[in-house]
Amino acid sequence: MKPPLTIVKVGGGIIEDPNALDHFIHGFISLQGKKILVHGGGKSASKLATKLGLEVKMKEGRRITDDPMMEVVIMTYGGLINKKIVAQLNAQDASAIGLTGADASCIIARKRPIKDGIDFGWVGDIEAVDGSFFSRLLGHDHVPVVAPLSLSREGHLLNTNADTMASQIAISMSAYFSVTLDFVFEQKGVLTDVKDPDSLIHTLDKTQYMQLKQKGMITDGMIPKLDNAFDTLASGVKSIRILNTDAMTRLKERNFDGYTRII
Amino acid sequence: MKPPLTIVKVGGGIIEDPNALDHFIHGFISLQGKKILVHGGGKSASKLATKLGLEVKMKEGRRITDDPMMEVVIMTYGGLINKKIVAQLNAQDASAIGLTGADASCIIARKRPIKDGIDFGWVGDIEAVDGSFFSRLLGHDHVPVVAPLSLSREGHLLNTNADTMASQIAISMSAYFSVTLDFVFEQKGVLTDVKDPDSLIHTLDKTQYMQLKQKGMITDGMIPKLDNAFDTLASGVKSIRILNTDAMTRLKERNFDGYTRII
Repeated sequence: MKPPLTIVKVGGGIIEDPNALDHFIHGFISLQGKKILVHGGGKSASKLATKLGLEVKMKEGRRITDDPMMEVVIMTYGGLINKKIVAQLNAQDASAIGLTGADASCIIARKRPIKDGIDFGWVGDIEAVDGSFFSRLLGHDHVPVVAPLSLSREGHLLNTNADTMASQIAISMSAYFSVTLDFVFEQKGVLTDVKDPDSLIHTLDKTQYMQLKQKGMITDGMIPKLDNAFDTLASGVKSIRILNTDAMTRLKERNFDGYTRII
Repeated sequence: MKPPLTIVKVGGGIIEDPNALDHFIHGFISLQGKKILVHGGGKSASKLATKLGLEVKMKEGRRITDDPMMEVVIMTYGGLINKKIVAQLNAQDASAIGLTGADASCIIARKRPIKDGIDFGWVGDIEAVDGSFFSRLLGHDHVPVVAPLSLSREGHLLNTNADTMASQIAISMSAYFSVTLDFVFEQKGVLTDVKDPDSLIHTLDKTQYMQLKQKGMITDGMIPKLDNAFDTLASGVKSIRILNTDAMTRLKERNFDGYTRII
């Protein structure tokens, strides 16, 4: 039997609010066993870009990443956010190590080709995750903390979607571990009415998802997240949960079900 | 007999000039055997600070590091510079891993106390280097690339002098390796006349150094570097060299002596 591993993706809304981050760190540390953290940070990048007088350009929810924007993204994702999370975890003896896909070439990606006239710039689509590298760090009881940056085969850093990165790491680690992938964000989970926390769906399978999507009961931002989640589940990851920080701290309670489980 | 290890400290003047950095990377990769790279980056930090409208304050050559300046320093040292060097090294299959002292708590420091009315802010003096952590990475053929940031026991990142950091890592690694410490910068080595490259001192011992210092033939910036070098040598590091990138690429040549050796 493969040993358990929890991979947590945490969104920008949480890590960019100091109180929410504190609460999250507490919850993350409370998770039993081996774990990997993948973080975003888009809002911080946009904030720094604006301060530096750069125009923030998005297309289909993805950041157009030209040379100056790539520097901003490296500084915020790989620098400020990553190192702050690592420092906070290690103040509690977590033995966290901050990484980008460039470190030890652990996440290799391909620069997204120009398509339909849209050039995303230095944006990468993941080709390979070095699962044995992450395994070795976990074997030494380190907690990898991964910023959403990958490396091209030509040695260029690439801006990479954090949800996809978490999924690709989860798929790769499934060769060694029984992987649970947690997407932690501000809401309780998948809601059929975003304004009503009581509309939480506790378990969601692909058939239900397709039906809800057809009825327009699943909102725009959640669609790529869930498409990605079902693909990941089909690729060998054992379990996927969508939850908030409160739920993360309560996972140990018997019969607690205040989150969405993707099945 | 302990296996050899080369620790290279490279200064800001080199890493902040793309052509000089390319040349340096080439030279660094040409060094045989296990190696660690420690880099600075003060000019980039000052440049970013100025762009963000922050005032750059220095005292005795050290940066006064308040909260906003600490964020700048994390972004440039731990983010931009560190990850660019790692990406360039890994484009040549070096298996480099970017680190700060916060990662795996590998370099612990103490916030410098206020003295004589001078508060340096988030500046750290190193207390402990986890040599076994670096050894393990080297054992897996990784090349640690270390940014000049350390971690306080309270979990705060601290701005740390890169020369001192290289020396402290060298001293710590001397328990496992026979360590050569190279300070790579723009000049050929220690010159008795900074305007004359022919005034290069090939070997320098402490007695000579004290005499030259007394005669005023060693300039301001070099004094803390050399004080630090002689202390490091006295603490178990096998060999210290002060050299430029050209010399680094020529170290393999028999009888090449175009640098300063501290003895």
